[in-house]
Parts: sequence; C-alpha cells; structure tokens
Amino acid sequence: MGSVIGSAGLAGCEWLRYDYNPTLIAQDRPESFTMWRYRQLLPIGDGPVRYPVPIGGTPLLPAPALRQTLGMPHLWLKDETRNPSASNKDRATALVLEDGLRRHIDTITTASTGNAAVATAVGAAAAGIRAVIFVSTDCQPDKLALMTQAGAWVFQVRHGYPAAVDLSRTAAHTFGWLDRNTGANPLTIEAKKTVAFEVWEQLGRQPPDVMITPVGDGPTLVALDKGFTELVHCGLATRQPRLIGIQAEHCQPLVRAWHGTPAQPAHLDPTATIADGIAVVRPAIGNAVLDAIHRSGGALTAVSDDALLSAVATLASRAGVGAEPAGAAALAGLEIAVEHGLADPAETVALLITGREMKANKATTRPDRMAIVETLDEVERFLAGDC
Amino acid sequence: MGSVIGSAGLAGCEWLRYDYNPTLIAQDRPESFTMWRYRQLLPIGDGPVRYPVPIGGTPLLPAPALRQTLGMPHLWLKDETRNPSASNKDRATALVLEDGLRRHIDTITTASTGNAAVATAVGAAAAGIRAVIFVSTDCQPDKLALMTQAGAWVFQVRHGYPAAVDLSRTAAHTFGWLDRNTGANPLTIEAKKTVAFEVWEQLGRQPPDVMITPVGDGPTLVALDKGFTELVHCGLATRQPRLIGIQAEHCQPLVRAWHGTPAQPAHLDPTATIADGIAVVRPAIGNAVLDAIHRSGGALTAVSDDALLSAVATLASRAGVGAEPAGAAALAGLEIAVEHGLADPAETVALLITGREMKANKATTRPDRMAIVETLDEVERFLAGDC
Ligand SMILES: Cc1ncc(COP(=O)(O)O)c(C=O)c1O
Ligand SMILES: Cc1ncc(COP(=O)(O)O)c(C=O)c1O
Repeated sequence: MGSVIGSAGLAGCEWLRYDYNPTLIAQDRPESFTMWRYRQLLPIGDGPVRYPVPIGGTPLLPAPALRQTLGMPHLWLKDETRNPSASNKDRATALVLEDGLRRHIDTITTASTGNAAVATAVGAAAAGIRAVIFVSTDCQPDKLALMTQAGAWVFQVRHGYPAAVDLSRTAAHTFGWLDRNTGANPLTIEAKKTVAFEVWEQLGRQPPDVMITPVGDGPTLVALDKGFTELVHCGLATRQPRLIGIQAEHCQPLVRAWHGTPAQPAHLDPTATIADGIAVVRPAIGNAVLDAIHRSGGALTAVSDDALLSAVATLASRAGVGAEPAGAAALAGLEIAVEHGLADPAETVALLITGREMKANKATTRPDRMAIVETLDEVERFLAGDC
Repeated sequence: MGSVIGSAGLAGCEWLRYDYNPTLIAQDRPESFTMWRYRQLLPIGDGPVRYPVPIGGTPLLPAPALRQTLGMPHLWLKDETRNPSASNKDRATALVLEDGLRRHIDTITTASTGNAAVATAVGAAAAGIRAVIFVSTDCQPDKLALMTQAGAWVFQVRHGYPAAVDLSRTAAHTFGWLDRNTGANPLTIEAKKTVAFEVWEQLGRQPPDVMITPVGDGPTLVALDKGFTELVHCGLATRQPRLIGIQAEHCQPLVRAWHGTPAQPAHLDPTATIADGIAVVRPAIGNAVLDAIHRSGGALTAVSDDALLSAVATLASRAGVGAEPAGAAALAGLEIAVEHGLADPAETVALLITGREMKANKATTRPDRMAIVETLDEVERFLAGDC
C-alpha cells in the first residue's frame, strides 16, 4: 500500500501526503515500465493490479531532428500520445478505475471537454465497468463517436462544460458512482504526477531545468508540480524544474490572473480556439496552478491558434509525433518562453505532448447510447433499461 | 551484430539465417522493452541504436471482459495499435531506417496501401530522413494528409498499388534510396518477427497454441512464422503455434489458393471491402504465406465486412482497443476458426490486432508535397527543387 499519511488542502485542491523517503522508488529495472512502478507513491493497496491495460511508461524522446531545427541540444518530448487512448488522461482513468475495481463499483462518471471522456469510455470498456459521460453539446462529433463505440452512455448538456460537470458530480453523489471529475477526485492528480517520476528517471534520476505543459483545468500542471516536489521530499532530487503553463490566446483565464491583468471577453471564448482540450473558462483548480507556477519559479503564457498549428506541423515533420493542437501547446509556447528569457536554449527542457485525437470509425457509432439532457431525472429514465 | 550466417530463398522470400542458440535472447529484465531487445536475432551491427523512437514492446492484453463475452479464458490480444503510428508497420520502418542511418542514406521509399506509407513518413520524420511515398490514387485522403504532414513527398499512381510498387522499386534502384517495399527488403520480415518473440516472452517463454492475424501482402504472417520457428531453432520452444490467416471476403486470393478453388472476380475486388489495409489482389509473398500456414498446421479463412465491423465494435466496447477494420480481422476470423474446429475455446489463442487509423489534422496537410505521376522522370522533376 502506498504509505499515505494524511491529506491537506492546498490552494483549493486535495493533496495526499506520504511517508516520504528514498526507498519509495525502486532503483532496479522494472518488471514493466508502467505507472504502477510508482505504486509506493500511489494510494492503492497491496495485491495485484486489477486494471488490465498497461498505462504510462511513455517515451521521453530525444527528437534529434527537432533539436537541430531549434538549436536546443537538450530538448526532450515526453510523448503522452503513446497512451492507450492517446492522451495523458489515461493515467487518471486507470487509477480511478483501479480503485473502483477494488471496491466493486460498477459505474464511472465524468464530465469532460472531450479527451478525458474518451479515456474514461475506453478505460471502462477494458475494465468491464459502465461509463456514463457528460459533455457539452459543443463536443466534437468524432469524440462522441469514440465514446459510444466504447460502449459508454453519453449525455450532452446544453449549457456547456460547467453544467456538464455539475450534472456528473451530482449523479456520482446520488448513485454512488466513481467520480473521475477533475478537482473532485484526488486520484486524478496522484496518477498524473507519475509523469514527473518518469521524466526524472528517464533523465537518469535528474529533473529537467524547465518543463512546459498545456493548461486547461489544471491537473496536468499541478500533478507535475506534486510529482517533482515529492521527489525532493523523498530526498531523490535537490530541486524541481521551473514549470511553464501554456493556454490558448482566446481562452487564457490563468495567464491573465498570473499577470494580474483583467481578462477581456476575447480572452475567455472557448469556442474561438482550435485548442478545445484546454479551452476552459473557469479552471477547476486554477488557484493550485498559480500556486505551483509561483513555487517552481515558472510562468504562464498564451499562444495563438497559428502558433498551435505550426507546432502541430513541426512535431509531425521533425519528430514524427502526431499531436492535436492542445497537445502541441508546449512546443508553441517554447518559442515565447525562450524569447522572454523564461527558458534558455542550452537548458534541459522537457515538453509535455499531452494528446492526439483518435479517429472514430463512423460505422460503429451508437446513437442509441446518446441523449441531450438537462436533469438527473432524464438521465435516470434514459439508463433505466440498463441497470 | 546479429549473427547472420546466411540467407536462403524460401517460397519466393529471402530468409536470413542466424547461428541459432538459446543465449540469443536474454533472460534478464530488459533495460527497455522494445524490439531492440532481440538485436542478436536482427541483422544490425554493434553500437548504439540510432533510430530515436522506441518501437515494439506492445502489450499482450488479457482482455478480461472480452474473454468473458467469448467464453475463452486464455484469449490474448497482441495490441500493435500501440506503436507510434498505430500499426505493426512501425517495426519494419524502424529497422529499415536503422540500417539507413548506419549507411548514411538520405532517402527512404515505399509503395503501400496506406499504413506502411504512414509509418514510413512518420518514422522518416523522426529519423531526419526524407521519405518518398508511392500510393494508388484510391488511397484514403486522411492517410495522404498524415504523410504530407510528416513532411513526406507523396506520388499518386493511377494504375493502382501494383504500379505504385513498380515505380517505388525502380526509383530505389535508380537513385540508391532505401527500399522498404514488401518482398524487396528482407529487413521488413526480420523486424516483424519480433512480434513472435514478444508474445512468447509475454506468455512466460511459451508460444500460444494458435495465433490469428490479418493477411494482405503476407509479411506479417510470414514474419510470425519465422519468429516462432527461430525460437524452436534456438532451443527456446519445442513447438510453434498454428497460424491462422484472415482475408476479406471481397479480396481473398490466398484463401482461394489455400482451398484450391479458383477465385471469382468478386473475390478479387480490393475496392469492395472496408479492410483496405489487407485488400491486396496479388500478394507480394503469397507463396511464402501458403508455405508458412502449411508448416504450422494452420489455415486461411475469409470474413465479411459485417463481421469486420462487428469485430471493431467488440474490440472497442469489450477491450477498449480501437482498431480499424483490417486491424480487427483476427477477431472477426476467430468465430469462424472456432466453428470450423481450427481453434478450441480452451486453447491459448493470441489475436494480432495490427492497426488503427490515425486522425489527420486537415489544417496542416501540404498539397504542395503531393502529385499524380506516371513515370520516374515526372518524379525526378517534381523533387528537383528538394535535392
Ligand atoms: C490535449 C490536452 N492537453 C492538455 C489538457 C490540459 O489538461 P488539464 O485540464 O489537466 O490542465 C487537456 C485537457 O483536457 C487536453 O485534452
Ligand atoms: C491494418 C493492417 N493489418 C494487416 C495488414 C497486413 O499485413 P501484410 O501485408 O503484412 O500481410 C496491413 C497491411 O497493410 C494493415 O494495414
């Protein structure tokens, strides 16, 4: 059992604490390089892992051609597109489902801008657990198709992502379902912090100087901070990297908050950017993001849609990595970071490539598993045949 | 250096031989679980691997929910969709490029029904090598987009895949490019045989009883045969699995040949099936496939498009694995194999899930890198600005 010794609120976010010491991460070669390698720092009990798909252990790519193009000899890409549903969301899904399998819970729910929902649907299918997903009616049709194909029930909510979150959380509470919502379940951050452990191990037990990541609701960045901080607490590292968070120009609430300048409507328009994965107007754990950036000595910055597309193209043609626009945001932000002196080209800089879109097979979409709803009653009626 | 001691023609296919012995595969835990773990059985020299992306080491999934649905407690999915470009083609691409990097060759070429071309484009981008791809004008636009995004030059050939192969091979010969074409380069089979080694290791150094795989040009199945046969030659296994090859009803030249019944036009119509990846009218190494099936005690069988779609849906909803129709053919064929007594539900059966389609970002397609051509002169003129 991961040695959890307590839990504290940190900038509005639940933060599990362990009995930190250097033995919590093994030095020997792992039996398999997955996120379960770090289970002494994860809140799961003893005994075999139930979740049946290996997760994590994604490559840290040296990307020689990209290094040459950018003149950055110590640049690395942490390629989270190599997870089963092609994004870092799979880590959180796996840990939440592992917990659910151990507690014999039969349904998982989440609201999502898209990728977390796809990851949840796919992961639940693998685990043999029912998934009930809440999304905005704006959610991309391809992502909806992927969810229903994986056998999930998908509810579209007219008043956008925040309303979807409310409904999903209420449903979890009312029906006793697993709640995978960001900010609601500390396991999502516990899972995503394993990215920091992996980068540190892949660099030969050294943290990078700088790590750059896209920021939507915040857990990805906050989890990086927690992971690198825990390595210091364990006595396994002497410092943590500066964390640089990237948002889209058209939806940059945290960049504005970081600079202390008020956000204009044009800065808070989630439908105006191609970076749908990070287009969150009210980030679930925004304060924790600001706190983590501050403590790490990092920064927050915004990038244009053109810069995102150019980053997608460069990743594909100079590194062979296929990212969606939000997934490529760290590369889009790198140029600005170097320009503004936030990162030096000679430093060891790791870019977190968070995801790529999966292609849906239209022919196997199941419209019978999809409905537009407003209330929990409607959800219950719709699911009545399936319980 | 892999201890290659000779090469022989086997049913029309070049077959490298090694100085087989049990020490060629290490027993210890690998530094990283990739296909380079088997380099003593691969024809590459000493020294560090140049290819900068980890390849292979894909999971062998127990798929508990799928096992339950099918009543097959020892079923396994070898999930090749977890490779960088989401198909088993990445193995061949990586080994051919590794060879090219060592010989300082600056261009790789292949013809392809689609996936091998995507894998080549993506792999070449990672390696910093130029890719020149030849496809039929029928090739899916999404796959073309993926290739040009990765920076490849793409030539569409009007007279279909066979004409594309001719042009690609002539170009390789004329310009001294790396030739990754199936049947032309023995490295493609050498690379793909590592799937057999991995399955054997993942089952605790035991081969499965049966292994089922889609068959197009043939290398995937022939390579499985070579891998399992080499384990026997090394003294690391006492038998090899029965290999069952699956083709699409509408394009089943090898199934017809296996049963010795003449193929009707409706059996040889590559555009009539959704399984484009395996819709090959004249398989490049068809005789080697028939020979391998025969020696392994296996069989060849055909599946309908409906069965393929149903397999895609079942893999997604019962295992969380997103395959394209050709990639799911092994599951579609499993039912028929069990019905016809080719496999028993109590046996250890491994299904090779060969690929899923990647989603292209339309916004980064580069039409300037694409042209319809008929002759090598046109190719040369088109590339003139790039040499
Ligand atoms: C591709 C992609 N990148 C990054 C993120 C940002 O993650 P977070 O919400 O943890 O800040 C998301 C979230 O959906 C995403 O889909
Ligand atoms: C998805 C998929 N499965 C299987 C195959 C068959 O491979 P082979 O040509 O090695 O028989 C291919 C080949 O393109 C493919 O794309």
